[in-house]
Amino acid sequence: MTRFKLVLEYEGAGFVGWQRQATGVGVQQAVEEAVRAFSGETPTVIAAGRTDSGVHALRQVAHVDLEKDVTAGTVRDALNHFLRPRGVAVLTAGAVGQDFHARFSASERGYLYRILNRRAPPALERGRVWWVPTPLDASAMQDGARHLIGKHDFTSFRASECQADSPVKTLDHLAVHRDGEEIRITARALSFLHNQMRIIAGTLQVVGQGKFTPDDVARALAARDRSAAGPTAPPEGLYLTHVAYPAA
Amino acid sequence: MTRFKLVLEYEGAGFVGWQRQATGVGVQQAVEEAVRAFSGETPTVIAAGRTDSGVHALRQVAHVDLEKDVTAGTVRDALNHFLRPRGVAVLTAGAVGQDFHARFSASERGYLYRILNRRAPPALERGRVWWVPTPLDASAMQDGARHLIGKHDFTSFRASECQADSPVKTLDHLAVHRDGEEIRITARALSFLHNQMRIIAGTLQVVGQGKFTPDDVARALAARDRSAAGPTAPPEGLYLTHVAYPAA
Repeated sequence: MTRFKLVLEYEGAGFVGWQRQATGVGVQQAVEEAVRAFSGETPTVIAAGRTDSGVHALRQVAHVDLEKDVTAGTVRDALNHFLRPRGVAVLTAGAVGQDFHARFSASERGYLYRILNRRAPPALERGRVWWVPTPLDASAMQDGARHLIGKHDFTSFRASECQADSPVKTLDHLAVHRDGEEIRITARALSFLHNQMRIIAGTLQVVGQGKFTPDDVARALAARDRSAAGPTAPPEGLYLTHVAYPAA
Repeated sequence: MTRFKLVLEYEGAGFVGWQRQATGVGVQQAVEEAVRAFSGETPTVIAAGRTDSGVHALRQVAHVDLEKDVTAGTVRDALNHFLRPRGVAVLTAGAVGQDFHARFSASERGYLYRILNRRAPPALERGRVWWVPTPLDASAMQDGARHLIGKHDFTSFRASECQADSPVKTLDHLAVHRDGEEIRITARALSFLHNQMRIIAGTLQVVGQGKFTPDDVARALAARDRSAAGPTAPPEGLYLTHVAYPAA
């Protein structure tokens, strides 16, 4: 048996998220069906993070165990053959040791949140960005973001249904910058709470509109109350950008 | 009556091109229907260039005459209200003189052709790039492109159904560069022949694969024979990037 590490790109719109739901197909299921179509085997595919419905991935990481004696290149190409019509691509596949676990070995996850900030709605980037037509002050958003960096109780920034044991997380990086009509929010942490990145984006958007001051972000954090922070930004602007692992 | 200049962004996949066809809806028709829904008027909307089926636009330019007394901002917002579900956006609208003609006043058109050059098929950029899985030599492609810059008889690089009176065009700019997994071909000219940019992309791709030398591009051009050039690259990689007009 060989364990393969897979790096996956996917478009979130066609899926109910990583995990299968009663309401539709999960990315996990699509990958597992491709594994079965190619190998006849039915292993579980484990991902680094369970992205929500509609959330995209630039470089999600997963692992899968195969009995079949195949090269990593064959795994990549065969899975892509079956996944191509479904909006999932295997960027790379590589044989790894049995001690590698896509979720538990990960040392960092990175996210990007894209806001299209212009009067006209998106045509080419429809479903890939959050459209905010009123002007946002990206530098105020950046000032607000600074309050969230570091180790904090993020109770105000997690979904009520979040199942994490502790609301304490360490945000290693959080930055906001404008690139023309687009505002990009980037974040890195060992792990994130459920909806944490989307509530951060939604709250910073309120700062960008001038309805919150940058210091109001610190107050929202200190309140430890979901209702003190801004709204949950829509999933279509969110991208899992990478997952890092300690050097072996 | 006021003439309005419209700058349009659209996703080519949902349309049979700019013009209406028996086989489906044109972008022109979508814009004209939005004009009618908003104003009750039925003017023709004229574009700078008739993009083919599946070709995208970042900044197409069109003009339309309206009897209704409205501001340019109202025209933009009202058209976007009706166009939003259709994958077309009006980036800007502005009142112009009756001497402005989107097609005949244009002094330059610009195109971008995007090739995704990696082993894995596109997931997020599906329908937005031409996927070429085998490695391409972008610097050979750039060397080949140089032969096409300037005034030439582009008979080898136009569709057999091209209706232009003359095959002679002046290509002011043509460049190829690699940006990670993507190869970008940019071009600028007063005007282009039917499929010219797609045949250029298809021919440079043959150079990138090493099946043509860069000098073979000069030979294909000199042959004045469509069969001497490479294939017509698919429409989904092509973007009309801008249309320029002389300063008034």
